[in-house]
Amino acid sequence: MVIQGLRAPQTEDILPDKWYNILPDLPEPLPPPRNPDGSIVSPKELEAIFPRSLVEQEISTERWIEIPEELRTIYLELGRPTPLLRARRLEEALGTPAKIYFKYEGVLPTGSHKINTALAQAYYNKLEGTKRLTTETGAGQWGSALALAGAMFGLKVRVYMVRVSYEQKPYRRIVMQTYGAEVVPSPSPYTEAGRRILEQDPDNPGSLGIAISEAIEDALKNPDTKYSLGSVLNHVLLHQTIIGLEAKRQLEALGEYPDVVIGAVGGGSNYAGLAYPFIYDRLRGKSETRFIAVEPRAAPSMTRGEYRYDFGDTAGMTPLLKMHTIGHRFVPPPIHAGGLRYHGVAPTLSILVNNGIVEPVAYRQTEIFEAATFFARTEGIIPAPESAHAVKAAIDAALEAKKRNEKITILFNLSGHGLLDLKGYQDYLEGKLRDAEPEKIDLSYLPKLE
Amino acid sequence: MVIQGLRAPQTEDILPDKWYNILPDLPEPLPPPRNPDGSIVSPKELEAIFPRSLVEQEISTERWIEIPEELRTIYLELGRPTPLLRARRLEEALGTPAKIYFKYEGVLPTGSHKINTALAQAYYNKLEGTKRLTTETGAGQWGSALALAGAMFGLKVRVYMVRVSYEQKPYRRIVMQTYGAEVVPSPSPYTEAGRRILEQDPDNPGSLGIAISEAIEDALKNPDTKYSLGSVLNHVLLHQTIIGLEAKRQLEALGEYPDVVIGAVGGGSNYAGLAYPFIYDRLRGKSETRFIAVEPRAAPSMTRGEYRYDFGDTAGMTPLLKMHTIGHRFVPPPIHAGGLRYHGVAPTLSILVNNGIVEPVAYRQTEIFEAATFFARTEGIIPAPESAHAVKAAIDAALEAKKRNEKITILFNLSGHGLLDLKGYQDYLEGKLRDAEPEKIDLSYLPKLE
Repeated sequence: MVIQGLRAPQTEDILPDKWYNILPDLPEPLPPPRNPDGSIVSPKELEAIFPRSLVEQEISTERWIEIPEELRTIYLELGRPTPLLRARRLEEALGTPAKIYFKYEGVLPTGSHKINTALAQAYYNKLEGTKRLTTETGAGQWGSALALAGAMFGLKVRVYMVRVSYEQKPYRRIVMQTYGAEVVPSPSPYTEAGRRILEQDPDNPGSLGIAISEAIEDALKNPDTKYSLGSVLNHVLLHQTIIGLEAKRQLEALGEYPDVVIGAVGGGSNYAGLAYPFIYDRLRGKSETRFIAVEPRAAPSMTRGEYRYDFGDTAGMTPLLKMHTIGHRFVPPPIHAGGLRYHGVAPTLSILVNNGIVEPVAYRQTEIFEAATFFARTEGIIPAPESAHAVKAAIDAALEAKKRNEKITILFNLSGHGLLDLKGYQDYLEGKLRDAEPEKIDLSYLPKLE
Repeated sequence: MVIQGLRAPQTEDILPDKWYNILPDLPEPLPPPRNPDGSIVSPKELEAIFPRSLVEQEISTERWIEIPEELRTIYLELGRPTPLLRARRLEEALGTPAKIYFKYEGVLPTGSHKINTALAQAYYNKLEGTKRLTTETGAGQWGSALALAGAMFGLKVRVYMVRVSYEQKPYRRIVMQTYGAEVVPSPSPYTEAGRRILEQDPDNPGSLGIAISEAIEDALKNPDTKYSLGSVLNHVLLHQTIIGLEAKRQLEALGEYPDVVIGAVGGGSNYAGLAYPFIYDRLRGKSETRFIAVEPRAAPSMTRGEYRYDFGDTAGMTPLLKMHTIGHRFVPPPIHAGGLRYHGVAPTLSILVNNGIVEPVAYRQTEIFEAATFFARTEGIIPAPESAHAVKAAIDAALEAKKRNEKITILFNLSGHGLLDLKGYQDYLEGKLRDAEPEKIDLSYLPKLE
């Protein structure tokens, strides 16, 4: 007999018809976004760069938000529901009594969960007459997702890509171009922000902060253009809850419920995507599930940051958000998990951390790649360096369960594959990987807002 | 309402429990492998490099060969059954009345169908006490699959990788190493064949022919070592029929049966994998399905080759096989679809071509990449350059159906994704892609065997 329950069902009925919005369930109200002078940023101000329906989702207190049928159809076409798999070989290799399940988002066309919100954002923009989207991208994972979403909905997409990545990491750039997006190295001559920098320093390598500034300026100046963001904001996180809602139905089909839910955190979108639908149960007293959020020691916003108002970008162009932050001027060491090199974390996730519902942990990249390589050799999938943080924490939880002889059920989010991030594995295998973490965190320059 | 039937079921019961062996159903008997003197190669001789159970499968006349339960379990764990998807957006973009379905093997961990036979070969080798496998690889797709299969079954794997690829295309090499395989640039100092070449020319860039010679020599000289091949042979093709057997069940669940079945052909394994279970029906008079096999004009074995006895490798180390060939000394122009740069084609497929059951067509790589980019922008998946040949033929069949206003059902094999082959897309997008095809085919040097 073949072992049962290695794959949960992936039928159309697994796909949810509503997203889950955690806002009405948070243990305390979400502090509003503010301007540097302390005034609250109005929805109207946000509509300068986002379409109205996404601004409405951003502040909505509706618990369940319907997923439009056209969008559900495209989710199905592009590979949702994604697999929920049992890592039986990993369990055996660890000799743990724990069961380990993972939700695998890497089967989606751009190789990660990012497409879930990219499609939703493109859909609503299309509906409201937007013709063109701008965004920034570092290594290109988010840019690839938005490029594909633009192709699906007939929207033009311009991606401001950090120049050094544009030149040194051509692969995701080619992916974006194959999907028909315009990719420009940032700083670019297309914006004032870019021109100002290029005048002073024509060889400026760029930064995510500069790219955000350019993408926002472009959206502000062109009436048919809106800006699109890949994490942190509430509407982004709620689009990602499709991951956890699917996982819940899939585990249910296997007769399972997780005792521990694990994910990696950069801005928080893949973590929220998997965890929030399960946190929903815990907030109602219906489960005692533990929630572990994993960040790199190189950018330890949850484990070493403060809960403060800070800008979302390096340049200080965005509204101020109250969140765990190590400061927007902080430049994280160049770890391979580029998607986790972020100074802040989603405001909703920050509140859950403050209230002891989500437990943050931080790991070094050498131990991350060791875990990821072990996972590849047992389960066959090479994890994205970001997702590898979740793999490491899942292995630790399984070993802890072994020590205590507890038959717990672990669920983690394998949010993407690492086929376009192989340099990190090469460095690990050749013994060239180095760890780094900030000595001290300086937040003295942040505005004093409560 | 969400549109129904965009995804066929992927439940465990879709996975077959037997492979289909076409040998007993061929319209004429398969000519035996021969030595250069014309003598027939005995099973005993094949057992020097392959385990007995695979040699038995190679010559078996059993129609259905049981898939061992342990192997079925690993297929499930690594992502089988793979998705069968309807390309509705592509249909709409083409304005065709045809329905287009594709089987997508790219969700498997190494990104293509190759793992299907790699796992089976590793399984039988393990069972018979083999401790170590050798193989050759060009760009690395087959080597990656065998590396992972070795990791799954605790076998050491040494991959002889063509030196120029080893140095210039590090990505798949890192994949193999991440899975724990030993990858050596070929020509290597580990074999007589390699040393002989290195003595004359220390900078020899290598070739697939040299790498095969080294891998076979290594297996012959080490008693615990066997050799593993990724296409052409009957046991390899029959392992791949899992693709078509799944597709049949999945289409049945949607109430469909294909009028046209399309796939790309290098050695023939992904094509046979999808098509043979449907050819089974046609050979019984139960369908009139058309079968289209697509090759590159740069290596036109089926469309311009002759049906002759020829070696499987450039160096002439393998037995002679009767097949469509453009000659083992032919060096195809350097197209991006490296997996289709092969001078021959599987002997069983050759017989089906001879009997008019399979219709071969050949395309230029510029039109291949044009079709693949169109597919990426409509369906979201960037095809491997090899698989893109099937995409092009499916589009042509759909346009033909449009012209005749025929509501036919098209099925093709999207055997892999192109995320590790982005250079071809870059060249296409930048207008740098060039076509090339042989002016004439010279087979005068082939042995005269009937």
